[in-house]
Amino acid sequence: MNINDVYSLIEQEMDEVYAALTKNLDSEIEMVNEVASYVFESGGKRLRPVFLVLAAKLAGYNGNRSSVLSGVVEYIHTATLIHDDVIDGAKYRRGKDSVNRVFGNDITVLCGDFLYSRAFVNLVRDGDPEIQLILANAAKTMSEGEVFQLIKTADFFLKFEDYEKIIFSKTAVLFSACCEIGGILGGLDKKKVSALKDFGKYVGLAFQMSDDILDYLGNPDYTGKNPGTDLKEGKMTLPMILLRQCLKKDEIKIIRDIFTSEDYSEKNLEYILTLMQNNNIKEKAEKFVDDYIFKAKTLLNEFDDNPYKDSLLFLADYMVKRDR
Amino acid sequence: MNINDVYSLIEQEMDEVYAALTKNLDSEIEMVNEVASYVFESGGKRLRPVFLVLAAKLAGYNGNRSSVLSGVVEYIHTATLIHDDVIDGAKYRRGKDSVNRVFGNDITVLCGDFLYSRAFVNLVRDGDPEIQLILANAAKTMSEGEVFQLIKTADFFLKFEDYEKIIFSKTAVLFSACCEIGGILGGLDKKKVSALKDFGKYVGLAFQMSDDILDYLGNPDYTGKNPGTDLKEGKMTLPMILLRQCLKKDEIKIIRDIFTSEDYSEKNLEYILTLMQNNNIKEKAEKFVDDYIFKAKTLLNEFDDNPYKDSLLFLADYMVKRDR
Repeated sequence: MNINDVYSLIEQEMDEVYAALTKNLDSEIEMVNEVASYVFESGGKRLRPVFLVLAAKLAGYNGNRSSVLSGVVEYIHTATLIHDDVIDGAKYRRGKDSVNRVFGNDITVLCGDFLYSRAFVNLVRDGDPEIQLILANAAKTMSEGEVFQLIKTADFFLKFEDYEKIIFSKTAVLFSACCEIGGILGGLDKKKVSALKDFGKYVGLAFQMSDDILDYLGNPDYTGKNPGTDLKEGKMTLPMILLRQCLKKDEIKIIRDIFTSEDYSEKNLEYILTLMQNNNIKEKAEKFVDDYIFKAKTLLNEFDDNPYKDSLLFLADYMVKRDR
Repeated sequence: MNINDVYSLIEQEMDEVYAALTKNLDSEIEMVNEVASYVFESGGKRLRPVFLVLAAKLAGYNGNRSSVLSGVVEYIHTATLIHDDVIDGAKYRRGKDSVNRVFGNDITVLCGDFLYSRAFVNLVRDGDPEIQLILANAAKTMSEGEVFQLIKTADFFLKFEDYEKIIFSKTAVLFSACCEIGGILGGLDKKKVSALKDFGKYVGLAFQMSDDILDYLGNPDYTGKNPGTDLKEGKMTLPMILLRQCLKKDEIKIIRDIFTSEDYSEKNLEYILTLMQNNNIKEKAEKFVDDYIFKAKTLLNEFDDNPYKDSLLFLADYMVKRDR
């Protein structure tokens, strides 16, 4: 199985998702449509819709609400994404200039607000109070998580639990919501819905951890990114937390000074990467990822084998693939 | 009747609104609560809740949903307000430092997102699909209007209809929603709900026009603001549109150059204010306001006389009072 097999399996639904994403952008304000088109035509893997649609299929649901709700999720995700890009001053996204770079911070903030409200209009129209509450709460958690991450910027002694809280909020909660919604659409019992919800959560946590590992230790030939962005932005993530736990007092002081100073340099990054290598941080960090993926996959034991389950299991691994 | 009589009439409901506003800010992220408290404790007149509660009372509704929904409206309003302050680089709001000035743009954008999503959580919990759609659509219209206003910045030849579209989106749509929701809560027939909805719309339009007039022609002793902020920010508003319509070609050229240039000066403002005085712009602009307030008040003829109707009629005038 490869990723194309997964997309083929749910091709019709993913076409519907794409149609929902673009069709709904019928603002009479041309600029809003322009910004939204710029965002959505740049593609992206639409991972959240894929999870929602597959979970719904696994749960035995065959209608089109999974596509409608995937559109809602993708709007919420995109709104937070472009607001984050404003906050981080990001220059690129998905291999092209970021929205804020092309249209400016002001338009980007407002178009994020538009996407939020457009999401809620569609969510209200869908009309399911349980699902509405899940997504409204997810959006709330995401914004809280972003604030939390921001106030923890440059906090070298960030607790591991707080790191997990951040990645849960910024990434896992929405994957979790997608899988839970799929189960609800299929009318599954509470236990199975809960299994899907947790599956999404663990995959989301592992996905963000994996991303954080790649930020330091990924191969630029695959990632297309320069290593050390999180270091530059003062984001304390898994590799650095694990490194901190391995070091002696004097080394900690040096690393902390690099991390908290504005004085970021290639030389400092090299020094940190060497320390990470010497302390097997990559292996240690990947152990966390693997544990979460194992937990996630185990939760699907609840379900009979079928191509949708296979796809979700495949995706769990695919999301944290290391040859990137 | 004075404004205190209005607040006394709905004292219990307004206490509930205040409780709803602050009680719901139970984020486990302390910074979110801190920002929200800073915003809500600064008071403000809570005009939107006042309209919603009075409309509900006029419609014969006596439950506490008007307070809950007022809280939702005030969150949405506040979210757009603080995002606008980020975009305008505002320094003050309600007589104290703006949120963005105290907490920074990043936190402010994210706390705006939090208030949006918190609003939708409460809206979903309230559970009325018709009201949900009204408010989700209002939020959407507001964000679209802000984008529209932004792309029309420094457009000296902005059409009057486009100006009306902007003030409808940024102000009137939410007042309209408040009054409509009041009518729905009271279970009024469609005609009466529609009358309340239009009442809110016309009051909202007049309120924003009045604000735009004060920006140029208000008495700083009352407004506490320096005149000409809209000129500085390149916002084309009613007084300038009316002035443009009065001038000869060569004068238009001078004014346009002042308006579109970055070269704003006291001398230029004085020149414009003198032209406005010579062309009776204040009187002409106030005619628009008076027409809308008249339209608004006429719509309440549908309703029997009672203290709630009296209060709404009083408020219609109060909102556009000129001794400010």
